[in-house]
Amino acid sequence: VTPPRGRRPTGGADTRGAILVAARELFAENGFERTTMRAVAARADVDPALIHHYFENKDGLLDAAIDLPIDPQAVLGALEVDRELAGTEIVRRVLGVWEDSPAVRDRMIAMLRTGLSHEHAAALVRDVLGRTLLAGLGELVEPDRRELRAALIGSHLGGLMMARYVLRVPGVASATTDDLVASVGPVVQHYLTGTLTDQVPPRG
Amino acid sequence: VTPPRGRRPTGGADTRGAILVAARELFAENGFERTTMRAVAARADVDPALIHHYFENKDGLLDAAIDLPIDPQAVLGALEVDRELAGTEIVRRVLGVWEDSPAVRDRMIAMLRTGLSHEHAAALVRDVLGRTLLAGLGELVEPDRRELRAALIGSHLGGLMMARYVLRVPGVASATTDDLVASVGPVVQHYLTGTLTDQVPPRG
Repeated sequence: VTPPRGRRPTGGADTRGAILVAARELFAENGFERTTMRAVAARADVDPALIHHYFENKDGLLDAAIDLPIDPQAVLGALEVDRELAGTEIVRRVLGVWEDSPAVRDRMIAMLRTGLSHEHAAALVRDVLGRTLLAGLGELVEPDRRELRAALIGSHLGGLMMARYVLRVPGVASATTDDLVASVGPVVQHYLTGTLTDQVPPRG
Repeated sequence: VTPPRGRRPTGGADTRGAILVAARELFAENGFERTTMRAVAARADVDPALIHHYFENKDGLLDAAIDLPIDPQAVLGALEVDRELAGTEIVRRVLGVWEDSPAVRDRMIAMLRTGLSHEHAAALVRDVLGRTLLAGLGELVEPDRRELRAALIGSHLGGLMMARYVLRVPGVASATTDDLVASVGPVVQHYLTGTLTDQVPPRG
């Protein structure tokens, strides 16, 4: 068969970029799960084999499309701590990245801010957060209600990042990282391994 | 003395609006604490007495300037529960407002989103959150580290609101309100009255 008129027969200099543009559009329109590699290829007007060539698989395409500033598994993957103590270590590591790498932090803030203000970007951020956070947490999170647990951790840490570095709310903007690790660590632990179904907490 | 040329001598139809515009500008430029009623009057080109007439005091002016969609004290003020059980009740009430009053929720989201994307609005949101949340929590929050406790509660609930209604992150978007109350309630309780200084949580 003859390839469609105008299809790029080989990978030119702009092919990778064209694939990314198409992927971002389709992820935004249909979500990650419902977007096929074939649809991205058709939208970008390239041979599907080129997507595999540049991005290996759909996960690689998503990572490149979202340009994730950091790999959660690199931050969380090698936690050599007791599962019952992981909450504190997670908060320590995440805060460490934010404090020591302002450029990474700024890109995380930019990604979150874009997701919050543009409907089409919300789907991308949602997919990335959902997938990478769960993957990063891995075995640390209780199998029961994994999705809820990961989402509560993510929304708490995301809210904390925005409150500390963007809104600069006094209590959290001026707190030391040790203060925040000690305060938020037990909460992340609760979401990781605590019982989420008790209706009312025991009296403290 | 002769009033400055052009000063509005009495409250015309646009006087209240002119005061609000001036107040928003000055709150954004200098923050709430460093903005005086006199400065607002000068910027709006009105007699300071008119600010008192329309807004009573600086707090009233801030409330009107920010157009706060809900009074935290109305939500939290009449909590007739044991202080040790307040966390769950707070989450239940806040979620109740979000679920039952989409218009209020949308305005809260809009306020937070504006604060996150516009530097000049961040100061306003910061002041409002800091002041009203602390006032709303009142006696429910432990005196030690009140500011940190309130900020952690606020950033967690704000992050939850954005994750559930804007990003629609699966785990929290699909959760029932009971699920969220049961999961997040103990955390708010921890921030209200728990010990925030222990370095490592006890093993669960």
